[in-house]
Amino acid sequence: MGHRGCVVWFTGLSGSGKSTVANLVDHLLWQRGAHSFLLDGDNVRHSLTAPPAALAEYGTAFAQRFGLGFSDEDRQENMRRVGAVCELFVQAGLITLVALVSPFRQDRQRIRQRIEALRPGDFFEVWVDAPLEVCEARDPKGFYRRARAGQLPQFTGISSPYEPPLAPELHLDSANHSPDQLAGQVMRLLEARGVFSVPPAARS
Amino acid sequence: MGHRGCVVWFTGLSGSGKSTVANLVDHLLWQRGAHSFLLDGDNVRHSLTAPPAALAEYGTAFAQRFGLGFSDEDRQENMRRVGAVCELFVQAGLITLVALVSPFRQDRQRIRQRIEALRPGDFFEVWVDAPLEVCEARDPKGFYRRARAGQLPQFTGISSPYEPPLAPELHLDSANHSPDQLAGQVMRLLEARGVFSVPPAARS
Repeated sequence: MGHRGCVVWFTGLSGSGKSTVANLVDHLLWQRGAHSFLLDGDNVRHSLTAPPAALAEYGTAFAQRFGLGFSDEDRQENMRRVGAVCELFVQAGLITLVALVSPFRQDRQRIRQRIEALRPGDFFEVWVDAPLEVCEARDPKGFYRRARAGQLPQFTGISSPYEPPLAPELHLDSANHSPDQLAGQVMRLLEARGVFSVPPAARS
Repeated sequence: MGHRGCVVWFTGLSGSGKSTVANLVDHLLWQRGAHSFLLDGDNVRHSLTAPPAALAEYGTAFAQRFGLGFSDEDRQENMRRVGAVCELFVQAGLITLVALVSPFRQDRQRIRQRIEALRPGDFFEVWVDAPLEVCEARDPKGFYRRARAGQLPQFTGISSPYEPPLAPELHLDSANHSPDQLAGQVMRLLEARGVFSVPPAARS
């Protein structure tokens, strides 16, 4: 496929632009002929890390035990499962993009360690950074409004902390650059780190 | 990549030859230029469906809640997580091979329904069938010996039931055919079902 398997992990506040940038990178990778896949809340919460209500057919005890909400423990398991899937995708040779708030440093660190144990140097933490005020003004899904109204408990940035990366592979200033510019920075990082073994192919 | 994403699910008793056949199919697919990945106990139990002991760093309560043993409930969740990963792999366009005992019909049926909802006709259940006596005589990992000695509780075929598929896409007679012959049958099934959109490419 002309590239190594690796994980590009986008972390940041809701509204920082993680999914937008990750989707652009996904498309740029496809244009290059690379094989990538994006894991985000939309496709992960649906099944792998489904909430209790989605597991009702298994019975209440099962749904309560394995379904995931937003407590610290549930968030840890959420991250652990996504990290486990990344291990499998990397072994399958894919450029695996993850776009999740992933607020806790320790959770990200644990995933980094497991991926690095499989593939040294193939975990790229990308901090999509915009001030809370900017994210809250964007509020693309209306989450901040609901969180301020007390309707979303433990909402990152409002009622639950966000722990910024201390040494991310890439720190994107999403308040002052366009998503296209930020996606370009990610592509240059992957190129600089030797992820690609062949020059860009034309595909449109 | 010249093919659709799909799931080929190998089910059968321990020692029936699931992993052997699945590995041969994986290699034949690679030779054809297809992109496949094999999920089996070895790579799944390590992280995605890890036992409580492997989660000790998260604390006892977490490990007991999310770690998986061999109770019916734990086996159900084991299958559910693997099924969720299959959904993601299929969406990524891979031919996803799964080799797990997967003894319960309902669990397999649930995974089939979810995959079929994404991709009608792209779930292939392959029953790798050999009589218990044959599997027990093979006993490649010594599991049957330990199960008969009472050292492995709830061991499928000995102290826990195996529910054979009622309408598998393929029923392999693994007592009377070589793994190479059986792998060839799987490849012919995938060809007949139109999984490949290009003729075989030479790759050695």
